[in-house]
Amino acid sequence: MAGPARASEEGLIARYFAPLAGPGADGLRDDAAALTPAPGHDLVLTVDAVVAGIHYFAEDPPASIARKALGVNLSDIAAKGAVPRGFLLTLALPDDWTEAWLDGFAQGLGAAAAAAGCPLLGGDTVRSGGPALISVSAFGEVPTGTIVRRTTARAGDRICVTGTIGDAALGLRMRLEPDAPWASGLDPAQRSELADRYLHPRPRLAAAPAVRRHATAAMDVSDGLAGDLAKMLGAGRTARVAVADVPLSGAARSACAAEPALIEAVLTGGDDYEILCTVAPERLEDLRTEAAAAGIAVAAIGTVTSGDGPPRFEMRDGAERVFAAGAFSHF
Amino acid sequence: MAGPARASEEGLIARYFAPLAGPGADGLRDDAAALTPAPGHDLVLTVDAVVAGIHYFAEDPPASIARKALGVNLSDIAAKGAVPRGFLLTLALPDDWTEAWLDGFAQGLGAAAAAAGCPLLGGDTVRSGGPALISVSAFGEVPTGTIVRRTTARAGDRICVTGTIGDAALGLRMRLEPDAPWASGLDPAQRSELADRYLHPRPRLAAAPAVRRHATAAMDVSDGLAGDLAKMLGAGRTARVAVADVPLSGAARSACAAEPALIEAVLTGGDDYEILCTVAPERLEDLRTEAAAAGIAVAAIGTVTSGDGPPRFEMRDGAERVFAAGAFSHF
Repeated sequence: MAGPARASEEGLIARYFAPLAGPGADGLRDDAAALTPAPGHDLVLTVDAVVAGIHYFAEDPPASIARKALGVNLSDIAAKGAVPRGFLLTLALPDDWTEAWLDGFAQGLGAAAAAAGCPLLGGDTVRSGGPALISVSAFGEVPTGTIVRRTTARAGDRICVTGTIGDAALGLRMRLEPDAPWASGLDPAQRSELADRYLHPRPRLAAAPAVRRHATAAMDVSDGLAGDLAKMLGAGRTARVAVADVPLSGAARSACAAEPALIEAVLTGGDDYEILCTVAPERLEDLRTEAAAAGIAVAAIGTVTSGDGPPRFEMRDGAERVFAAGAFSHF
Repeated sequence: MAGPARASEEGLIARYFAPLAGPGADGLRDDAAALTPAPGHDLVLTVDAVVAGIHYFAEDPPASIARKALGVNLSDIAAKGAVPRGFLLTLALPDDWTEAWLDGFAQGLGAAAAAAGCPLLGGDTVRSGGPALISVSAFGEVPTGTIVRRTTARAGDRICVTGTIGDAALGLRMRLEPDAPWASGLDPAQRSELADRYLHPRPRLAAAPAVRRHATAAMDVSDGLAGDLAKMLGAGRTARVAVADVPLSGAARSACAAEPALIEAVLTGGDDYEILCTVAPERLEDLRTEAAAAGIAVAAIGTVTSGDGPPRFEMRDGAERVFAAGAFSHF
């Protein structure tokens, strides 16, 4: 570390991160934590990293960055039908980090972890030699054998999504082009909503039990609905999606009304962090009812079919479109 | 990614990492893996990252970098008395990465994972925007409640280390100053041994069962024996260490004979990846015997005492020395 006034790694951990430590983490005084799933349960493991300047803006509030870093992982946990149990953190700091930034980061992380019931179990803090990078390994649990897999959809299943699609992509675009006519035409509450959806993933943990009980396959939408649906289906299955059925927020509807071409950003943009899942037609209403009881809307947007090729989107004007795979990727 | 010839993240995963996937990882086709400890066991979780130019040389062979990234984590698993079960990988690549590098990295990772019985369970690949960074979250298991903690040593316990101390620190110094007289005086096999100890951690997994059965506290030596011992003891306990009892390789003995001041590098340098543990005096022989039966030498080097302050090292000339905390830190 540059500067003799900088605290040691142990000092930073004790001050900022030990208060976030959960059971089994031994107050972060150890190099390892113990974690045991409840009897009759499997652990579900996932890892995702975010990098300054790639997955978020370096100037974003550190509490928001922390919330995103944890949230993108909790979104994966939720999409597998799992309940969070804890996480490990790798925090790679740029040379110009400050204690104020770290303080804000730890506060945001603690709040997000507490809200999800997902305590910190351990971590490593290093210099990145470049931009900040935050990698989170998150752990959840499901009753034994009930993890909801990604590639197990069946022809005839209905395709569903939670919440609304495209808000984060529009929030990002609004941030890059704040004076675009469509953005200027939104009211302040709509602008604020879109900006927040980009900044703060809302992992759909409350929908996880319904997904686990009813879905035949699931994943979270992080790289855009069209591309993620193609990934979920893989070879031998494809889909028809009715764009009119894709749930849009009021803000997204206003934006698309002002600038119809934005529907492509809605369908292919990333950072939705909604759950995309498939369900047998006879289970659709149970899925929707149980998720709604947990406060989360589920919309049926299409159907899995046999065949190859990317999913076909029936646009509002009746035209059929496909979107190239990998239209959006952080990599 | 720059360059249209670059494969997609999914393509890279399928080509290089899917062959490394273990049970529960669903061939890395999913965003999450399932992992369940054996009945009557706890999972042990740890995370450590290595960064190019900080924890290793960017020009090191990619297979060696992979082996180090996994090895430093397996070393933590071993020091907790645990048996490896699997790991998650975050691979942050610099802009100038090549498929040849990735191929070598994946091969080294696969070999190290197979040798340890620790398969890949999932991962995330991102651009780093700076140097390469590799973060590994590793998972092991222990019989319920038997994780060996770091801060539980008792006054009167003997202090032990596995293997030999200081080789990696001398290997690093030799690499930085290859023409130093002490280095030039080593024979080729000794030079090669020191270089290898720096490049390739040798996690002491075979000693883990003996440590679990007998040690009162344990950690791995990653930041130097003196500093790590101080961390292990914490407040209210200190230690006396006889430097003559610290196990040195033939190469380290030759180096210290040529240049006696190198003993400080031996005692405070990092990257040993040996197990440092404490044991009740009446269990010392059982620990040594069982570890020896597993092929790993354990040396008793000192005794835990009540009191504060850093551990005191009795040097070969009878002088007593202490080493400032944090004499070595990657952070």
